[in-house]
Amino acid sequence: MDSASKTRGFAHRHLLGIEGLTPAEIVTLLDLAEEAVAVSRQVEKKKSVLRGRTQINLFFEASTRTQSSFEIAGKRLGADVMNMSVGASSVKKGETLVDTAMTLNAMNPDILVVRHHAAGAVHLLAQKVGCSVVNAGDGAHEHPTQALLDALTIRRHKGPIHRLRIAICGDILHSRVARSNILLLSALGAEIRCVGPSTLLPKALDRLGVDIFTDMRKGLEGADIVMMLRLQRERMDGSFVPSVREYFRYFGLDAEKLALAAPGALVMHPGPMNRGVEIDSEIADGPQSLIREQVEMGVAVRMAVLEALAQHLPN
Amino acid sequence: MDSASKTRGFAHRHLLGIEGLTPAEIVTLLDLAEEAVAVSRQVEKKKSVLRGRTQINLFFEASTRTQSSFEIAGKRLGADVMNMSVGASSVKKGETLVDTAMTLNAMNPDILVVRHHAAGAVHLLAQKVGCSVVNAGDGAHEHPTQALLDALTIRRHKGPIHRLRIAICGDILHSRVARSNILLLSALGAEIRCVGPSTLLPKALDRLGVDIFTDMRKGLEGADIVMMLRLQRERMDGSFVPSVREYFRYFGLDAEKLALAAPGALVMHPGPMNRGVEIDSEIADGPQSLIREQVEMGVAVRMAVLEALAQHLPN
Amino acid sequence: MDSASKTRGFAHRHLLGIEGLTPAEIVTLLDLAEEAVAVSRQVEKKKSVLRGRTQINLFFEASTRTQSSFEIAGKRLGADVMNMSVGASSVKKGETLVDTAMTLNAMNPDILVVRHHAAGAVHLLAQKVGCSVVNAGDGAHEHPTQALLDALTIRRHKGPIHRLRIAICGDILHSRVARSNILLLSALGAEIRCVGPSTLLPKALDRLGVDIFTDMRKGLEGADIVMMLRLQRERMDGSFVPSVREYFRYFGLDAEKLALAAPGALVMHPGPMNRGVEIDSEIADGPQSLIREQVEMGVAVRMAVLEALAQHLPN
Repeated sequence: MDSASKTRGFAHRHLLGIEGLTPAEIVTLLDLAEEAVAVSRQVEKKKSVLRGRTQINLFFEASTRTQSSFEIAGKRLGADVMNMSVGASSVKKGETLVDTAMTLNAMNPDILVVRHHAAGAVHLLAQKVGCSVVNAGDGAHEHPTQALLDALTIRRHKGPIHRLRIAICGDILHSRVARSNILLLSALGAEIRCVGPSTLLPKALDRLGVDIFTDMRKGLEGADIVMMLRLQRERMDGSFVPSVREYFRYFGLDAEKLALAAPGALVMHPGPMNRGVEIDSEIADGPQSLIREQVEMGVAVRMAVLEALAQHLPN
Repeated sequence: MDSASKTRGFAHRHLLGIEGLTPAEIVTLLDLAEEAVAVSRQVEKKKSVLRGRTQINLFFEASTRTQSSFEIAGKRLGADVMNMSVGASSVKKGETLVDTAMTLNAMNPDILVVRHHAAGAVHLLAQKVGCSVVNAGDGAHEHPTQALLDALTIRRHKGPIHRLRIAICGDILHSRVARSNILLLSALGAEIRCVGPSTLLPKALDRLGVDIFTDMRKGLEGADIVMMLRLQRERMDGSFVPSVREYFRYFGLDAEKLALAAPGALVMHPGPMNRGVEIDSEIADGPQSLIREQVEMGVAVRMAVLEALAQHLPN
Repeated sequence: MDSASKTRGFAHRHLLGIEGLTPAEIVTLLDLAEEAVAVSRQVEKKKSVLRGRTQINLFFEASTRTQSSFEIAGKRLGADVMNMSVGASSVKKGETLVDTAMTLNAMNPDILVVRHHAAGAVHLLAQKVGCSVVNAGDGAHEHPTQALLDALTIRRHKGPIHRLRIAICGDILHSRVARSNILLLSALGAEIRCVGPSTLLPKALDRLGVDIFTDMRKGLEGADIVMMLRLQRERMDGSFVPSVREYFRYFGLDAEKLALAAPGALVMHPGPMNRGVEIDSEIADGPQSLIREQVEMGVAVRMAVLEALAQHLPN
């Protein structure tokens, strides 16, 4: 089955979140991403599926990592890619979010990749524009391509996600990464644990069917995957900002805590890391770490998403 | 007649302003832009007329909208496009405007698209460099591609510009858009009205052969096109900055004032809009608004200009 | 001999400095650059040697000139080029230099062009990443493509570098340009003079086999090439910042001092210039100046370097 047939398993015009995707659709994207991994490892890292298409990366929050990942993904598929970092320009002139998006939409792009600091902003845009929209992170809501790349990375090492015990640890309250991962990994049948200080665990976790631990040592017991999150101090208001030293002591991943996980447990982090805060450098760079591979899978997953959406573009 | 023949009607190496263009040359560009509209609506939005050419967008003032429009236009024609936002870099190191341009010129670009805050800066550069120069806005002087895209938008809805009554309203004093539009629409035989508070009407208007109104209700009577301008408060020195509430009351376009225009009158705005200041949201998003279409025509007109200049590039 | 054969004379995976290159390797790069000059002067300025390859420009210091030169070079060779200005993003989130580079490396780039404010930073990165690294300037250490473009410019006017008398003048202490030029021009057999106030002459100069002059008039006597440096006041701590007026009087290049050089002496400057500080405008824009040509040669030399490295990329 060629990749054109494979994309037929994905029936959406936008990728706004993991919410709303079926397990089969998720697997379609992961399978497609496997092929993209191979493309990116070739000498000539090119497909022509987006040739002549226009992709605009519209980032209301700066992000070296995610924006370049989408830029490389689009270019490797042959698209004309444009980066638009807003904040510097029209927003200062008093233009609204919707006006900015509608303006870009009028330039006949095929795909708009959007990051915004407000949860729900990307859904709003998707209702307004004529092109496909990809959510590259909206507030504390969703970051679907991060969850997909995490799942791809896990699957390459552990096989099917089903029944794996995955501990998501740290600042879950402020994390769109955690939210998208919980949705995706649950859909594929993983056993999910959320581990963190009670002040950083959102109340809504109860409804998501995960197990909750405020003692990291207990939470890591028997985990196949330990997924650390970045402590997002910049998103915390003054009321509760943990001391870095205390935080690391109780919730930082070091060799001693990792030893409590299952034999062969693997460590992940979405980056950028605060070394010595939520993760020890020895672990981050150690043999159980998948952190670099996650970045490579990021490009592959974004290629897969762009390719899957391309079939639904008007033509 | 193919588009290569069409460009023969345009005899300039640069596009520095509307001033100096003949009506026939303007029509040549508009006809060429019609074809570009079609290209941008295709699946594969590509022509190869600038393949292997280098286009540099040199912006001394930030502009999401205009810069991306030129970037998309160049890429759809196959050019290698580079964005250079100055201010951040060499200018801080004490390099002059001319040094910056001459440095870029030495890299053998074919086309330099320049926006600068000083009237006349773009003409100065054009005398120094060996490549073609396009004015993307220089101070309060000219913004020729904006006038061309406005004319194209009007023509698509109202047919020939000749004898249309067009009311240009608001902050005419600080507007290069107004100046380029007056030149272009006059050349094509429109009846032009300038409408605004006397403090925002430049004295030089008398010489341009337009009718002047300080009462917006009178100015809009029988207008086929109502072209609103952005209130450029950032360009006003402290002496006279109107209150937003007062301004909207007398010079903001709302349904009641628009009703005074001709039946079927259409509304334009170069963007970014100050909603509730110079234009009511209901009108901006209403059935008489051409504002989104102006943006689409912006890409098309810039493709046309680049294509017309390409024939005069050395080869 | 085609250019593929020519690149065989260059045996390195990275270009980190002039140090470590043989004279034959330098000549290989210069010969390859001659061909690139011709490519950039064609209508269709394209080769396909980097088609499907990914080049990332990772600039920790802003530089309009060097970054655009590398961007144009990569695009003219067919690469997908990405610019990454760090400082705005991940660095603020507390990510280290190595993490940033390793993250980009995981996206499977072929070539990483790096500028960094710390001497040695680029060597450190080269040890960590899997792709080829080009040093685009690291602290006061090296700037090898600048030295190559200077040599190419000289060779085009004066023939072989061997036995030419070259005076490098000004702020040698803070100049990676001076250091790379001394290494390269020495390797090719030039007679090198370093001219400047004693406070701006590094002690290590003794070991480099150059002649040292604190009197500019004596230093310029009989020079075939006068290479001026930018006075890098932003790199000086408070202890010694010369007055601009005094500096120009003793070390600024004007017609009177230039008359002391050899007949037909040529003037160079890496840019951006401080006119009236280290060089008089009359000289900078005069018939003996090669300053614009240096910029053109910059693109050519970077194309040559990228092409030479391409043969060592994995395939």
